[in-house]
Amino acid sequence: MFISFEGIDGCGKSTQARMLAEALRAEGRQVVLTREPGGSPGAEEIRRLLVEGAGERWSAETECLLFTAARRDHLERTIRPALAAGQTVITDRFADSTRVYQGAARGDLRAFVNRLHDMAIGIEPDRTFVIDLDPETALGRGNARGGDEDRFESLGLGFQMRLAQGFRGLAEEFPARVRLIDGTGSLDQVAARVRAAL
Amino acid sequence: MFISFEGIDGCGKSTQARMLAEALRAEGRQVVLTREPGGSPGAEEIRRLLVEGAGERWSAETECLLFTAARRDHLERTIRPALAAGQTVITDRFADSTRVYQGAARGDLRAFVNRLHDMAIGIEPDRTFVIDLDPETALGRGNARGGDEDRFESLGLGFQMRLAQGFRGLAEEFPARVRLIDGTGSLDQVAARVRAAL
Repeated sequence: MFISFEGIDGCGKSTQARMLAEALRAEGRQVVLTREPGGSPGAEEIRRLLVEGAGERWSAETECLLFTAARRDHLERTIRPALAAGQTVITDRFADSTRVYQGAARGDLRAFVNRLHDMAIGIEPDRTFVIDLDPETALGRGNARGGDEDRFESLGLGFQMRLAQGFRGLAEEFPARVRLIDGTGSLDQVAARVRAAL
Repeated sequence: MFISFEGIDGCGKSTQARMLAEALRAEGRQVVLTREPGGSPGAEEIRRLLVEGAGERWSAETECLLFTAARRDHLERTIRPALAAGQTVITDRFADSTRVYQGAARGDLRAFVNRLHDMAIGIEPDRTFVIDLDPETALGRGNARGGDEDRFESLGLGFQMRLAQGFRGLAEEFPARVRLIDGTGSLDQVAARVRAAL
């Protein structure tokens, strides 16, 4: 099974991805917990180009090409081998992030994003959890984390609002695959909502 | 005017690109001499991922996405602004290199390469010079140069033979744009052939 977690920075999806991986492992499953951009040695190198530096460092089109290159490497070197070995793959972000970040919020590139996904990636997770949280709360958490990986956070609250809207829209666009999870409350409360929706 | 030089590593195209730039500048033209992968600060960072490391570091598909990302940045930040300012742009490699390296010699990806080019790049040089040289001679020159940028050279002579064939094929495929230049003889002899074909 291939599961992805999506949402804006600071929404808690990384923590929830880890908690679900731990819970499934405790039940005896073999789980590969991974993330995007990154998740394979080559893709992690591309990640540095994407998440560090100035907000306007890349155009939305170039950004989309770089994310797709990283995703292709991640798919070839990590996701497909794990699925072929019968393992469960849980990824912190996948193609939906590109749909929302580069396709909706960074420019009107949704057609470009879709064509690139169809030709270079082609697969979707079996289940996607969008952790839904108020952008002001999430942005506070994201910034509080510190570190160099703040290129997208640096684009500001208006950008985060458009992102949150884009992520919510996924649940309507892909109702069979995407589940919207209320991200408020304690970690265990959110984790329980994820398990109920799995 | 937008001019590209193409050919296998060690064929002499970088030297010929520089010599043409100097000749046109001596005639009073404003010339931007650039190269791929690279040619803009962002694209030069992507270049490092492409030309260093092991030959099998990336699949042909991932490689193609990375080259296209670098080309898009090069186009946006260097080529288009220079052409818009009325300058002549001479580039050491452009989209034909991807057609030959990723489209023909690294896998049967020509359709993938073409679709990616159409959606993300879309323009061709006004004139392209393919410097044609025997792969054994060219490989000797390329390797003699040293340095870390030897990922493609490391793929061996059989690979270089397929590349040379692919570059020659461009002249047949794009007869209005591509000129095949005999790369044997002295630098001045080759430069004279380029000028005659311009």
